[in-house]
Amino acid sequence: MNLIILSKNDFIEDTGPVHIRDHRLEHIRDVNKSSVGDELRVGLVNGNIGCGRITSIEKDKIEMDVTLDREPPAPLQLTLMFSMVRPRVFKRVITQASAMGIKKIIVVNSYRVEKSFWKSPVLEEKNLNRYLITGLEQGQDTIVPKVLIRPLFKPFVEDELPDMIKDTMPFVAHPYASELCPYNVGRPVTLAVGPEGGFIPYEINKLIECGFNAVHMGERTLHVESAISGLIGRLM
Amino acid sequence: MNLIILSKNDFIEDTGPVHIRDHRLEHIRDVNKSSVGDELRVGLVNGNIGCGRITSIEKDKIEMDVTLDREPPAPLQLTLMFSMVRPRVFKRVITQASAMGIKKIIVVNSYRVEKSFWKSPVLEEKNLNRYLITGLEQGQDTIVPKVLIRPLFKPFVEDELPDMIKDTMPFVAHPYASELCPYNVGRPVTLAVGPEGGFIPYEINKLIECGFNAVHMGERTLHVESAISGLIGRLM
Repeated sequence: MNLIILSKNDFIEDTGPVHIRDHRLEHIRDVNKSSVGDELRVGLVNGNIGCGRITSIEKDKIEMDVTLDREPPAPLQLTLMFSMVRPRVFKRVITQASAMGIKKIIVVNSYRVEKSFWKSPVLEEKNLNRYLITGLEQGQDTIVPKVLIRPLFKPFVEDELPDMIKDTMPFVAHPYASELCPYNVGRPVTLAVGPEGGFIPYEINKLIECGFNAVHMGERTLHVESAISGLIGRLM
Repeated sequence: MNLIILSKNDFIEDTGPVHIRDHRLEHIRDVNKSSVGDELRVGLVNGNIGCGRITSIEKDKIEMDVTLDREPPAPLQLTLMFSMVRPRVFKRVITQASAMGIKKIIVVNSYRVEKSFWKSPVLEEKNLNRYLITGLEQGQDTIVPKVLIRPLFKPFVEDELPDMIKDTMPFVAHPYASELCPYNVGRPVTLAVGPEGGFIPYEINKLIECGFNAVHMGERTLHVESAISGLIGRLM
């Protein structure tokens, strides 16, 4: 937790001080081993970042005076669309995407996605929100990404996606693409990443029809998390 | 497991057939759900890649005729040096590095590394080898990376590192660097990645003295795995 994320409810009055309970209290006390007088990086959810000075530590709450005087880092100009993955991988992908500064995430279906994944509790709003916040705590950001869940591939790609990719360069990572993924494109990007074996030909063709460029990153098959961060490191 | 890795011991005679037991047997039977006649991608450890045709499936072994007629993918021209991490993260980093095609990995100390990490069984040769092979199975490669374990920072950086970085561009990822990590450098690289908070100033200075360029990838603090794959996607 590189940034303590505060919500409006943590403020005693509108301007502070704040009272921190829950897992953040445990983290500050047991992991950071902070004491009264210490200053920690804090940020208001969807708001500014700044500094929190601990004024008291009690068993069930920590009190801080906070100053929120800096804007969070600029959003990454990239929309990530990935096919649903095994729930334990999903958590890591969502958290990582949030930590990297992505503000729009779309979870889509693909023929190769196991149907049972769509029933996983990881997709419930409360859980999703927790993974996103964990990512923001990691990346030191406050702006909660928007996540769209789209379990039907065809209507999503035909009806919604064309509008979403306007004014972006749309790429789909595809192991059998002939083109290598370009570097530093200098424009907003939409990046689509399929299951490990790739989207099936029908899906790739739908995405190409929609305007996507199919690109690859070499002969090796990478885990979805490595592929996503490698592609983003290269494109942006 | 995108590639079944064979060792010399799996061959009944020098040229085959092969008998597969252990976790690969379970994978082929229970995950791939393969049958007699199916062809699977196989590779000989440190050797060629090719195809294995299943000729029989028994309870305790699978027999295959194999043809190994292709070279494995070209190695990634990058040496990865990273500071020791929490054992469960270590496993993922080593496996990912192996999957990405890195052939030389150096695990170093840093002031911010918890001493207990160095005593973890993840560093034992047998375990290390298993993570490396898992990475090769993922990335579809056969050449086992070399791993150097260097729990003393100063003597390693002073005595061994200068020779190792010859003919490479050496970069160290550093959150407070002023220079952004460059793209597609077109030359062999040595990439050093410190703990999440970065190497301490003393260590960064030692690396800079040794010839490293300190670079960053933006304001956000990423997990070591995301940072490594993002930097590699960008540099290579």
